[in-house]
Amino acid sequence: MMWRFVSFYMLLVLQGSLTVLSASAQEGIRVLMPAPLQLTAGGQRLSVTQQFTISVKGHPDPRLYAEASRFIRRLSERTGIFLDGTGYVRPADTVSSATLLISVKRPGKLELHEDESYRLEIDARQAHLVAETDLGAIHGLETLFQLISADTTGYYFPGVSITDRPRFAWRGLLLDVALHFQPVEEIKRTLDGMAAVKMNVLHLHCCNDQGFRVESKVFPRLQQVASDGQYYTQEEIREIVRYAGQRGIRVVPEFVVPAHTTAILTAYPGLASVKRLYTLQRYFGVFDPVLDPTNDSVYIFLDKLFTEMAGLFPDAYFHIGGDENTGKDWERTPHIKAFMQAHGMKAYMDLQTYFNRRLEPIIRRNGKTMMGWDEILQPGIPKDIVIQSWRGNAAYYESVRNGYRAILSYGYYIDLIQPAAYHYANDPIPDSVTLTAEERARILGGEATMWGELITPETVDSRIWPRTAAIAERLWSPGTVRDSDDMYRRLDVVNLELEGLGLRQETNRAGMLRRLANGWDTKALETLVDVLEPLKIYDRNQGDTMYTVFSPLTKLADVAIPDQRLPRLFNRWVEDFLGGGVAENRIIAQLQIWKDNDLAFQLLLSHSPVLEEAAPLSKSLSELAAAGLEAMHYIRENKPAGGDWLRRQSEVVQRATQQSGRCELQVVTAIRRLIDRAAE
Amino acid sequence: MMWRFVSFYMLLVLQGSLTVLSASAQEGIRVLMPAPLQLTAGGQRLSVTQQFTISVKGHPDPRLYAEASRFIRRLSERTGIFLDGTGYVRPADTVSSATLLISVKRPGKLELHEDESYRLEIDARQAHLVAETDLGAIHGLETLFQLISADTTGYYFPGVSITDRPRFAWRGLLLDVALHFQPVEEIKRTLDGMAAVKMNVLHLHCCNDQGFRVESKVFPRLQQVASDGQYYTQEEIREIVRYAGQRGIRVVPEFVVPAHTTAILTAYPGLASVKRLYTLQRYFGVFDPVLDPTNDSVYIFLDKLFTEMAGLFPDAYFHIGGDENTGKDWERTPHIKAFMQAHGMKAYMDLQTYFNRRLEPIIRRNGKTMMGWDEILQPGIPKDIVIQSWRGNAAYYESVRNGYRAILSYGYYIDLIQPAAYHYANDPIPDSVTLTAEERARILGGEATMWGELITPETVDSRIWPRTAAIAERLWSPGTVRDSDDMYRRLDVVNLELEGLGLRQETNRAGMLRRLANGWDTKALETLVDVLEPLKIYDRNQGDTMYTVFSPLTKLADVAIPDQRLPRLFNRWVEDFLGGGVAENRIIAQLQIWKDNDLAFQLLLSHSPVLEEAAPLSKSLSELAAAGLEAMHYIRENKPAGGDWLRRQSEVVQRATQQSGRCELQVVTAIRRLIDRAAE
Repeated sequence: MMWRFVSFYMLLVLQGSLTVLSASAQEGIRVLMPAPLQLTAGGQRLSVTQQFTISVKGHPDPRLYAEASRFIRRLSERTGIFLDGTGYVRPADTVSSATLLISVKRPGKLELHEDESYRLEIDARQAHLVAETDLGAIHGLETLFQLISADTTGYYFPGVSITDRPRFAWRGLLLDVALHFQPVEEIKRTLDGMAAVKMNVLHLHCCNDQGFRVESKVFPRLQQVASDGQYYTQEEIREIVRYAGQRGIRVVPEFVVPAHTTAILTAYPGLASVKRLYTLQRYFGVFDPVLDPTNDSVYIFLDKLFTEMAGLFPDAYFHIGGDENTGKDWERTPHIKAFMQAHGMKAYMDLQTYFNRRLEPIIRRNGKTMMGWDEILQPGIPKDIVIQSWRGNAAYYESVRNGYRAILSYGYYIDLIQPAAYHYANDPIPDSVTLTAEERARILGGEATMWGELITPETVDSRIWPRTAAIAERLWSPGTVRDSDDMYRRLDVVNLELEGLGLRQETNRAGMLRRLANGWDTKALETLVDVLEPLKIYDRNQGDTMYTVFSPLTKLADVAIPDQRLPRLFNRWVEDFLGGGVAENRIIAQLQIWKDNDLAFQLLLSHSPVLEEAAPLSKSLSELAAAGLEAMHYIRENKPAGGDWLRRQSEVVQRATQQSGRCELQVVTAIRRLIDRAAE
Repeated sequence: MMWRFVSFYMLLVLQGSLTVLSASAQEGIRVLMPAPLQLTAGGQRLSVTQQFTISVKGHPDPRLYAEASRFIRRLSERTGIFLDGTGYVRPADTVSSATLLISVKRPGKLELHEDESYRLEIDARQAHLVAETDLGAIHGLETLFQLISADTTGYYFPGVSITDRPRFAWRGLLLDVALHFQPVEEIKRTLDGMAAVKMNVLHLHCCNDQGFRVESKVFPRLQQVASDGQYYTQEEIREIVRYAGQRGIRVVPEFVVPAHTTAILTAYPGLASVKRLYTLQRYFGVFDPVLDPTNDSVYIFLDKLFTEMAGLFPDAYFHIGGDENTGKDWERTPHIKAFMQAHGMKAYMDLQTYFNRRLEPIIRRNGKTMMGWDEILQPGIPKDIVIQSWRGNAAYYESVRNGYRAILSYGYYIDLIQPAAYHYANDPIPDSVTLTAEERARILGGEATMWGELITPETVDSRIWPRTAAIAERLWSPGTVRDSDDMYRRLDVVNLELEGLGLRQETNRAGMLRRLANGWDTKALETLVDVLEPLKIYDRNQGDTMYTVFSPLTKLADVAIPDQRLPRLFNRWVEDFLGGGVAENRIIAQLQIWKDNDLAFQLLLSHSPVLEEAAPLSKSLSELAAAGLEAMHYIRENKPAGGDWLRRQSEVVQRATQQSGRCELQVVTAIRRLIDRAAE
């Protein structure tokens, strides 16, 4: 699942666009995300006044009343209007003239393939939201919230007619709370963000080698000795499930077996294949400890545990992980080897399939469908399981061609710090692949995966958002919506909307900068960090040996974010300029700032030793910017710089590609293009 | 309790100081807050290296191990050093050469008057923290954390010898979660902040007219129909108590009776004095609904409820409120009037005392001491109760002279938006008051009160912090520590330390500004907000009629903070300049920024109608700054401005004193002084 065996890095050159966003505010209609299926604009606007009211018609699940009430609060908080009816949503029989009328046929069920469609009609008199189920209506409310617009006359909803429904039924986010724990409030924030972009599955990765995070009353040693005290009580799990359900989001739990079970074995070492001392794993990676599939106690244990856990998570799907078993602990254990021989098993994966087949009835008896990662797809596994694909597209198409249902996570690994545009381009059913209609129907959707090696409650929002909104659009909107420039334009607006919901990707960054600056002015640090990104793929935690669960995640690479905006803009300016455009002054002004920044940074460094690791980057940025300025001069004067100059600058560029503090400068390529041009 | 009857506003002119903080970082020894009893500096520093370790000697409560472990994490997060021993604290028998050796005699008890003293000796080899109890050691860890210093050689603890203990045993913060609810995570953040400044009592105001916030299994209608779904489960209460105890903080619950009980009566109307329809109160203020003290069912109810609640909160003190009973519902009820007559009661307060006396055995039977606000101090009430004084110092001294123990909250009402210096000057035992040693001993300490009318989880930190740190120092440090300039110098540093703990007074402000700016650049708004404070005392919610529990608290007066720093500095510059100092250029530069700001603000306003209420203030600031610039010109040229000029500027000043958006400009007085000087 953690993409450890993928060794290449797909270099993605962002498509250039000359549109520079001078501000994020736009009329709501231009910034909808995910983009709806059909939209007709142009009608009369509906003003937001103190008298704004909501009425509900039909037969929704009661959750709709609470969501409509939440909509009113958000509207009030956003516009500052003291709404008369705040907190009160009325049945339509009494007031059909409400500003917003919601008509719903029947209660939505929190299950796969439930109807999530809606229609929204806005004119000067009323907004009318129509849906088969309240789940569709809840999505419509999020669309309506994004439509809020403002001009000098006040706030309004633009006149519009929208028909919308999702392309895929499974639009998930995996949140790993095992490698680093996340408190309940963080999960709730994440759910708020997911609902805002119409995602509908929270996949909770509940345990791994580093900890078991759900209270078990049947096997209390799991949380007592295998969680560092960081786990959810059963009451908290029920609250998470309730909170998610309230927003139309299913919660699918994952309890990974038979490998990645050091935590389970720390609590119950008798279940291990190899008898040794087990303690919680403090590093991250792939380890040998594994359950003993030849031991009947293992199945008795898992039956009781999974039955208890299945009762906590009402969803119809139950994920058993199944990934990254090295097989080594099986190979080095005589009685297991003997068992394999006796049963004619050649490879350890045959033994894992045997294990999975014994697990499956336990899951089924609890009324659940079993899910697992790629690895569980082996001959002999029942056809009704769902495969979550992480190791590449090939295995994924193979699953659906072989009759299995699948969801795609390959290409949606947001922990790998790749740009939103990369994930956005990753379609679950790309044009290049030929599948029958039946096979396509088996592709349920996808899941972004937020693995937890290097996240804390302070940084996790900046790793999930806003990039995950681009994945949400990929899974909801028609496949033809694929212009990445337009995606980025809207993503900047969505980012602020998410902040309005309480997400902390922007605000926590400011606090982290202040901590790093040790109370001194943060400007020089900010200028540097704005062009840094953490090392990508698995480069940051080199060989899995740098970080443990106790390492401080408050440093340069933690405050640096993926998909930095300024380098993205700067790249476009350079592209424009080299193509004959007018970005010259902007480029020169920016290079001047970078060139001068190192002086201020050095002063800051003298007060804050933690910034030592940033010093080479600051120096490189300054040198690189100076080189860029010289290049601009040569280009402007239209006389080619000499070979000596180019050689000297190439050394500067070379130095600037070096990482420090697990971060890389993001403007090297753009400035090198200027240098190359100057030498032509 | 809510100080509604206090009509004056003590104008506090900040003492001027010419020290301008160019940055907050200081050697740790200069920024300790609260200031310790005794400190000798000058020894050799102790470097912070990867090999930093902690050992514990003696017999502490196990909580110390967790706190020491937390200290290591914080040290690592602050310095970025990957400590070898992160997460591991060892008993001293195995390693006596630890970098930090903690010696503790016995487990501390979470009770009033427990020993909280500690000694701290730091030299080049080791830091040695010695305490009678682990509670003292925990305070010492906070001191040590504040001592972290840095220069170009790295991080270190300065050589120092500290002897410290609190002046008062009760150093509390009342957090009102009834008027607006606060989630558990917010309470935990608050507890982290309290521990950082050595406070030791969280007073949780659990219910009021607007809601009952603790799950009752005996009377479940309390949370079911009288909480809007916003309450703590019993498991959550236990978690809050555990978390607080882990940091050496007691939790004292308040369940206010007999008035402020609209929520209780909404759930159980049969307990009311007047039979009418009860629904949760949506406004804030003083209301008539009150329990019927002549009804035995009331005592049966309270016995069961308080017994259940007493079981949830292990502290030895139990607060029954008792404030702000209008008596009107008693007066208008014949059977109650008859009861009073039959028992020879003349005033309704006699009836309330009767009620309190029937309550007292219930509290006592649960092993608790009863506490209440001023009002419960009436003839006939037992001497062992504790009075919390809120209506003025007179009643407070009367209590202790009459043999009652008391804590002071009068003067510590942080909801009233007064400057830290005002609270700081408010001593529980001022020089001006003569008390015997015995009477002084009855003064247990004080409590800052964070009433919840106008706070949300988004704004509450900015109302509590950093001002409460000044109150914490008042209650911990010797009374002779009272230089408010020095307090402010240290407060700015503590503010960042609190942010490092996760408190959100700084970061949330940035997000709120972005929301108000509707995605446009926030600079012009920020420049304006930096000189605004919300209306003080009870002026903001005029006549208790403007705000309900559903009003948006996302507006100008919510992003404006108490005790703004820039106006404080500007006042000092003006004082300096008028006294012949050298602040002239600074003043002119600042006035120029304010003068020009309205243009940018107007542009922003055209995109964000919610800012309409800020427009008059922006215009006034611009006009006022222009007047100030003219004044500076006259003063510099040394020719008095004419009477006409002065008259025109006086109108400008007059307009600038007008509130808008429930905010006031904080630089009017300083600029008026410049204008007056120009006219001399």
